[in-house]
Amino acid sequence: MPNSFGHLFRITTWGESHGPGIGVVIDGCPPLLPISAEEIQAELDRRRPGQSEITTPRKEADTVEILSGIYEGKTTGTPIGLLVRNTDQRSSAYTEMKQAFRPSHADFTYQSKFGVRDPNGGGRSSARETIGRVAAGAIARKILAQAGGVEVRAFVTRIHDIAAPDGALAKFPTLAEVEASPVRCPHPATAAAMIERIKAVRSDGDSVGGVIECRVRNMPVGLGEPVFDRLEADLAKAMLSLPATKGFEIGSGFGGTLLKGSEHNDLFENRDGRVHTVTNNSGGVQGGISNGEELVFRVAFKPTATILQPQKTVDLDGNATELMGKGRHDPCVVPRAVVIVEAMTALVLLDHWMRQSAQNRIFSFPA
Amino acid sequence: MPNSFGHLFRITTWGESHGPGIGVVIDGCPPLLPISAEEIQAELDRRRPGQSEITTPRKEADTVEILSGIYEGKTTGTPIGLLVRNTDQRSSAYTEMKQAFRPSHADFTYQSKFGVRDPNGGGRSSARETIGRVAAGAIARKILAQAGGVEVRAFVTRIHDIAAPDGALAKFPTLAEVEASPVRCPHPATAAAMIERIKAVRSDGDSVGGVIECRVRNMPVGLGEPVFDRLEADLAKAMLSLPATKGFEIGSGFGGTLLKGSEHNDLFENRDGRVHTVTNNSGGVQGGISNGEELVFRVAFKPTATILQPQKTVDLDGNATELMGKGRHDPCVVPRAVVIVEAMTALVLLDHWMRQSAQNRIFSFPA
Amino acid sequence: MPNSFGHLFRITTWGESHGPGIGVVIDGCPPLLPISAEEIQAELDRRRPGQSEITTPRKEADTVEILSGIYEGKTTGTPIGLLVRNTDQRSSAYTEMKQAFRPSHADFTYQSKFGVRDPNGGGRSSARETIGRVAAGAIARKILAQAGGVEVRAFVTRIHDIAAPDGALAKFPTLAEVEASPVRCPHPATAAAMIERIKAVRSDGDSVGGVIECRVRNMPVGLGEPVFDRLEADLAKAMLSLPATKGFEIGSGFGGTLLKGSEHNDLFENRDGRVHTVTNNSGGVQGGISNGEELVFRVAFKPTATILQPQKTVDLDGNATELMGKGRHDPCVVPRAVVIVEAMTALVLLDHWMRQSAQNRIFSFPA
Amino acid sequence: MPNSFGHLFRITTWGESHGPGIGVVIDGCPPLLPISAEEIQAELDRRRPGQSEITTPRKEADTVEILSGIYEGKTTGTPIGLLVRNTDQRSSAYTEMKQAFRPSHADFTYQSKFGVRDPNGGGRSSARETIGRVAAGAIARKILAQAGGVEVRAFVTRIHDIAAPDGALAKFPTLAEVEASPVRCPHPATAAAMIERIKAVRSDGDSVGGVIECRVRNMPVGLGEPVFDRLEADLAKAMLSLPATKGFEIGSGFGGTLLKGSEHNDLFENRDGRVHTVTNNSGGVQGGISNGEELVFRVAFKPTATILQPQKTVDLDGNATELMGKGRHDPCVVPRAVVIVEAMTALVLLDHWMRQSAQNRIFSFPA
Repeated sequence: MPNSFGHLFRITTWGESHGPGIGVVIDGCPPLLPISAEEIQAELDRRRPGQSEITTPRKEADTVEILSGIYEGKTTGTPIGLLVRNTDQRSSAYTEMKQAFRPSHADFTYQSKFGVRDPNGGGRSSARETIGRVAAGAIARKILAQAGGVEVRAFVTRIHDIAAPDGALAKFPTLAEVEASPVRCPHPATAAAMIERIKAVRSDGDSVGGVIECRVRNMPVGLGEPVFDRLEADLAKAMLSLPATKGFEIGSGFGGTLLKGSEHNDLFENRDGRVHTVTNNSGGVQGGISNGEELVFRVAFKPTATILQPQKTVDLDGNATELMGKGRHDPCVVPRAVVIVEAMTALVLLDHWMRQSAQNRIFSFPA
Repeated sequence: MPNSFGHLFRITTWGESHGPGIGVVIDGCPPLLPISAEEIQAELDRRRPGQSEITTPRKEADTVEILSGIYEGKTTGTPIGLLVRNTDQRSSAYTEMKQAFRPSHADFTYQSKFGVRDPNGGGRSSARETIGRVAAGAIARKILAQAGGVEVRAFVTRIHDIAAPDGALAKFPTLAEVEASPVRCPHPATAAAMIERIKAVRSDGDSVGGVIECRVRNMPVGLGEPVFDRLEADLAKAMLSLPATKGFEIGSGFGGTLLKGSEHNDLFENRDGRVHTVTNNSGGVQGGISNGEELVFRVAFKPTATILQPQKTVDLDGNATELMGKGRHDPCVVPRAVVIVEAMTALVLLDHWMRQSAQNRIFSFPA
Repeated sequence: MPNSFGHLFRITTWGESHGPGIGVVIDGCPPLLPISAEEIQAELDRRRPGQSEITTPRKEADTVEILSGIYEGKTTGTPIGLLVRNTDQRSSAYTEMKQAFRPSHADFTYQSKFGVRDPNGGGRSSARETIGRVAAGAIARKILAQAGGVEVRAFVTRIHDIAAPDGALAKFPTLAEVEASPVRCPHPATAAAMIERIKAVRSDGDSVGGVIECRVRNMPVGLGEPVFDRLEADLAKAMLSLPATKGFEIGSGFGGTLLKGSEHNDLFENRDGRVHTVTNNSGGVQGGISNGEELVFRVAFKPTATILQPQKTVDLDGNATELMGKGRHDPCVVPRAVVIVEAMTALVLLDHWMRQSAQNRIFSFPA
Repeated sequence: MPNSFGHLFRITTWGESHGPGIGVVIDGCPPLLPISAEEIQAELDRRRPGQSEITTPRKEADTVEILSGIYEGKTTGTPIGLLVRNTDQRSSAYTEMKQAFRPSHADFTYQSKFGVRDPNGGGRSSARETIGRVAAGAIARKILAQAGGVEVRAFVTRIHDIAAPDGALAKFPTLAEVEASPVRCPHPATAAAMIERIKAVRSDGDSVGGVIECRVRNMPVGLGEPVFDRLEADLAKAMLSLPATKGFEIGSGFGGTLLKGSEHNDLFENRDGRVHTVTNNSGGVQGGISNGEELVFRVAFKPTATILQPQKTVDLDGNATELMGKGRHDPCVVPRAVVIVEAMTALVLLDHWMRQSAQNRIFSFPA
């Protein structure tokens, strides 16, 4: 269903930007995992607005309440209900949006599809919806870490046309390196330039986008369910289900099409007592199944649609009009999206791990 | 499940490259659609090997047999079973593959995941599996065309580093323009250069990849089911579920991250009595829902993994060895993949149309 | 997933008996339905404890809060989140249950399956979980009524061995007739006897079960999706998913096996300008699809497992012990279950109506 | 989807009674299971027509062909495609059915739902569709047996009003005892009387139904996924998805409603070093989860709808007419249905075992 994601570790999100609250139900969580509200809150805090000078000045505490599924500090295997109350008031900032369609927003399409929409802050199409994903992702990440040391790390590689130098981000960055800068690029000089660019476009009432890379190390071998539920297919879907995303590539990606087969193929070798590939153009996935190498993929985010400049548009009756962006918005969503990319990645990996386990580990037959 | 795709128009494919046959079950097809084996065969013929001088010389007729779901030339609403017998013999070409993992193929990951694999021609991981997708796509395309004049057209925009000049492919190409060249690039001069490149790498025993663009016109407004089953999310999954794909982008894609919001936003206008956007950086989708503009997306295909050159690898026991590609293979899969991209696109669109209809058209409530 | 039900009108319930609250997310609800918290509350009030002298004296207001999916009094097509806070305190009544397994409860199986359970009031296995189902069912019933005048009516036909006389309940009862008695049997004399029986077993610290019949009139023709999702199959699953149910039968049911084919077959006739059956042994479903006749099925509920008598059992370590039921419990759940049976029926019918519509009504092909 | 069943061990069936063939795709089968066409054929032979003097004299070999998913005698984890060609000719026996609706068949509802139907032998609504279920069930049964010694046994307890004496079938019967009689009732004297009754009604051109009981021993503890996918709920759906079924009950069933809680509750005791219940009114399931006791349920089958007597009905235009049954039909489907009940039971159990394993066995957390 449209608001559920995953098969065995399955989340269902609900909630509008300016309604009573936002939430998620997590179904299928393994029992006996120790988890606290604080651990979930820590990830929400990384996502919430108002963290730094380059994000929206809007303040919301985004405090999570655990409603079910956890007993005496441990999961019970029953559905986990999480709730975050919205505290920001329904503001007059959205009055005009009721009457006209914001360019490159979801106003027109929601109105066309459903015949109705909640215009306050984008309603269901708001990125606030991702709160539920991040909360669920916090639990998935903990399971991945405990069960196999799986580590998911996303970071910003480009903002507008400012990118880290070739090879500067080759090493798997630490969380501290990523979090060292509010722009979440682990290359300090590049991060500083990115921040300047974001401040500059903000002062023009404009916006920018960029690219996030996500890597996973200590990947289990065997995740991915061909032919349709290939690991990269489900990752692509997860990423393109995020607001403002326009592209996904794994391993060599679009650039890999410029290589010949003899250059692109990842040769196998025996290293450290295990089969490894010498290069990783595959990005950690072959034939739709993880091969144990680092998972590497990138996601493109368009510039924020809301800009504080007048734009031509039409109203609900189709008449030409002009709309001037108001309110407090991120001039660039990419730094905060890092947390969401990590959450979705964790959800995909855990779900596939459970699917893999269901088919392959429970029954063993005599040779 | 891993071998099913779609929710309401759902296909389930089965079959290995060199087993008895390949097939598909289509569940949920609307009844009373006139459809013949010939119409399905026409699409399979566009996909099958041996069509031209730049594809594999392997010959398979890939003749489809309708096993169920069609009565007196019309669909009955019951599942449609389609079967294509494999006619190529199990060859000795694959003997070595039983003992060693082909680089950048699925041999290692299938063996690791399942503990067993059919080594003949890649077994289930072979692109022959897409026969079932193309057959089902033929039916979906006919429904889309009859129900709303929806037209799906894919074509090759780049092979290796040979691309059509900027703007040369701006116009929605006709099927005849695409099919005019075996490489399926509707720009004749570029197509000729692409063919030369493919021939050149083949003579070196090497391979190349490229990029396919897919466009859809006469798009219904309202397709897409946020927040997870956004139209672009399901398209991305569909494309990344194809063998050899490494990337997906919609509308402005990765390039769009180089624009500012003021440059990227698609302003609305009233044109021809309907709300349209002036530009189409969105690629026909906003907030996960189609806005009626042309759907535009691109898919990256890596160079064919099989090359006729010796490559280092390891055997089943992890010992270093060398493998020399044999058999008859496409030096570039991109031209044939055009048909598969179209089929998957049609499957996604029809499924979303049925989902949209289920929720929104059957019940109307007093104002 | 285990805590979701339905395909297109899909509910996901969460919550434990004595946790912070109980809730449901409804995904796929058609937009523009006018619905208020009061309408949902009305059905919850029919379900809640403490309604009458024959139910548990436990008092819970079970007040519903709408968290999302409804804007200015109408559904928006986005997920509807509903929350009912638990107000009854965690009581010492359950202390012993932490140490021993209550006979014919879910204590042993939850503990065995998950390795942990919330022992307070049965946790997730409590019938309080059905609050979410009843709330969602209230919305489904309104849509069914508005879209086609579909009317769902359940009522009690037997308590212990007290049943209405043959033929006494042949007429489709009104809601008022059902609600006239707290036992929800629309035959007054039988209802009075049932109440006496329930009071008698309660005074013994014992319990009884019974049978509910559910009928639906103004049934659309064509609901049901063979071969697996037959209408009666999904109804059977819905009913057996309710706590305390042990059986389901449709139309002639188990009794129909005592007839010959010549006695059992429902002959067709043209009546009132439409094809009808003369008899209704089929119970309104043939070949898994509704035929437009009244839907008629029955559900068996076992006697309440909690009794106020000492019972032999074992503790968590497997040692023999004795457990004495405490707390405030229904000596017979059947009267309150009437509301839950109606809710589940409405959910099944609406979901099937949407599925039927998706496949069959949107596309029409030239003859 | 309507023609798929199961979540992790998922089957999709296709095919019409008199079309080219009948088949099934099995997705999710664990790899490395040794399985042969002969083992699958053995179950199909138990199901096929013409086995004895009390079944239809129609002869079909129902020979299975394995099309995919098995390599060198073992499953590979990829989808298993199975095909049974129909060999019986399209006969003139069905000519009249094209023009009139057979009473208590699916003719009217299929025609109403889809606007079209294959009238030959009932098309998709024919019980021949269950061939795919039985073939898939053969594989599921082998896995259950190998993985845990799980043994599924169904048998006939009543035909029309002829039932085995109370307690005569208390012991878990052997396969040989069931197969000793063509009516598949393991109580010889009762079986003989049943056969006489079936012969008698056949000579009258009439038909009868009956009741099948299914038991499973060596049940794993913990199967069942509350709250909706309770084990008994999925069993009920499985059974009501079979042609001609009208009822399902587990454990004490409808009869259990005549007991008081103090009589019905299954007390726990420690027996043979494990927690057991003293009685088994629960039928092996508590709170929707298996408790390790014998699984016990019963299914009601109505008398065969096809009778060789003239019956009033209406034609496609709604005009009154009379239809005389022709062709070769079972006067009682119950004996052959035993095999189908076993197959569906095995499919449900294996799917639940895999689901249970996915959630609960792969991750263990420090205490």
